[in-house]
Amino acid sequence: VDFGGSSAKVGLVDRRGGILAKETVPIDAREDFERIVEPVESCIEGLAKRHGDRGRLIAIGVGTPGFIEEGSGRIVGGCENIPALQGRSLPEHMGGALGVPVFADNDANCAAAGELAFGAGRRFSSFAFITLGTGIGGGLVFNKRIFRGARGFAAEIGHMSLDPSGLQCNCGSRGCLEQYASGPAIVALYQEKRKKRELPAPILSPKEIADRARGGDSLAVETFDETGRWIAQALGTLLNLLNLEACILGGGISQAGDVVLEPVRRHLPDFIWPIVGAGVSIIAAHLSNDAGILGAAAQALERLER
Amino acid sequence: VDFGGSSAKVGLVDRRGGILAKETVPIDAREDFERIVEPVESCIEGLAKRHGDRGRLIAIGVGTPGFIEEGSGRIVGGCENIPALQGRSLPEHMGGALGVPVFADNDANCAAAGELAFGAGRRFSSFAFITLGTGIGGGLVFNKRIFRGARGFAAEIGHMSLDPSGLQCNCGSRGCLEQYASGPAIVALYQEKRKKRELPAPILSPKEIADRARGGDSLAVETFDETGRWIAQALGTLLNLLNLEACILGGGISQAGDVVLEPVRRHLPDFIWPIVGAGVSIIAAHLSNDAGILGAAAQALERLER
Repeated sequence: VDFGGSSAKVGLVDRRGGILAKETVPIDAREDFERIVEPVESCIEGLAKRHGDRGRLIAIGVGTPGFIEEGSGRIVGGCENIPALQGRSLPEHMGGALGVPVFADNDANCAAAGELAFGAGRRFSSFAFITLGTGIGGGLVFNKRIFRGARGFAAEIGHMSLDPSGLQCNCGSRGCLEQYASGPAIVALYQEKRKKRELPAPILSPKEIADRARGGDSLAVETFDETGRWIAQALGTLLNLLNLEACILGGGISQAGDVVLEPVRRHLPDFIWPIVGAGVSIIAAHLSNDAGILGAAAQALERLER
Repeated sequence: VDFGGSSAKVGLVDRRGGILAKETVPIDAREDFERIVEPVESCIEGLAKRHGDRGRLIAIGVGTPGFIEEGSGRIVGGCENIPALQGRSLPEHMGGALGVPVFADNDANCAAAGELAFGAGRRFSSFAFITLGTGIGGGLVFNKRIFRGARGFAAEIGHMSLDPSGLQCNCGSRGCLEQYASGPAIVALYQEKRKKRELPAPILSPKEIADRARGGDSLAVETFDETGRWIAQALGTLLNLLNLEACILGGGISQAGDVVLEPVRRHLPDFIWPIVGAGVSIIAAHLSNDAGILGAAAQALERLER
């Protein structure tokens, strides 16, 4: 189950990452906890029944935004989009009715687990996964396992401080990667560049700006060059700290492919020990549309098999 | 064995971190590999023999500067102070004669292992260890184990880039923590502050500057405040990434105690998610004089018991 602000995507996933069936359950984010969770449980039950033996449930994996406490599964913060989930534990409340273990993790860890099990991470033992979207999330994989830290809050890659006098971030820190390389940051940077040249500055999506960059628009190219430099600074620090085999870029913006990746690769040597950078792969995620469902399933499988 | 540029410190260490005996073997860094290693081996043998059954060797732990490749134990870079060791593997060459396994690690990882086994890290499952000295090194402990990364090069905490337009670092990156919080950086910062006020600016040691700060010298206080802010920025990022229980500051400069630690603690909330920072301990290392010997032994014990 992939919980979002307006819907929960529910999928029946097999061990190899095949999706036997999927459904979308609309969510009214103002509803209370039970009214949000019950239709999701019914949906899971329905999907499983309809697929008989092939659909036999062994576990339920749930991905949500926010900080999820390891052990209890409680969402202890950062889930403002679905207030009813704040402070609650989905594993505790969903487990009973369905009779299988339930594992919850934040959506960025889920996405990392999805890449590890079924995507671009399969060939690596260790990597950082970065989602570039409205926000910037992350997941860390060491030794083929998701690394969650002491309380489950690890991998806040979007909140690496890259400039002590940089932009104020909503996390409380300054100069965070998220302030420079999220979707809204890319959109604002391109607009600013257009305005400086006294050109019309419509609000475009990151994808549209990427298309312009691909078409030769020099301000769009500059935008991704600057963004890529910030990402390279973050990845250089990350790699100097963790000596990983790869960095995998996911999320909507990464679908622009080389427009995003090429500047990151080009700037990375400026921020890394050469010996640590040697042979590191900087690549795009493989999973896209169903990444949320596959990731939620993958993290459950991983924990089930520990 | 703790290898340095001018000597190797050799100690006979028991499982509880007791030092039964220790000796210093002078090193002529211009000598070739065998001439450096043989006297160290003889020293180990001599120490063990003299202590009879209590001195029975079970493993040899070696700490050196540089990047040490996991598996082979080869020093693949960063050991400029003892050129003869570069490219060589101490475990390979020392093992035979003494008949016990030999484990090599870089000195910062050793120091972290020492704190974990015998020092300030005993009560934590996960922490970052930072040595503040002429350079800045680090070690990462997850789940009571030293984390070495894919090839053994992890934990280069001194080479986190904290400012993309900051000072050029000798690692090739820019704005690295080492440029702002190492001993020489502290010395230079205090001098610069004195010069700006047209005061005499003798070259003092970091310890002397710390003494002045403790005595109320406002420029010395400012120096540690600025240095502490850089360290806080690095630790905030580190904690947002790794959700650790503690950060332990070691190395010569950390012996100044609260003069160094207080500004770090004070600035840390500016660079961290409150939920991630809650309950994190920022403390000084416990081991000092014999940290090198105890650390080298501790990392060997840790690997022996895996």
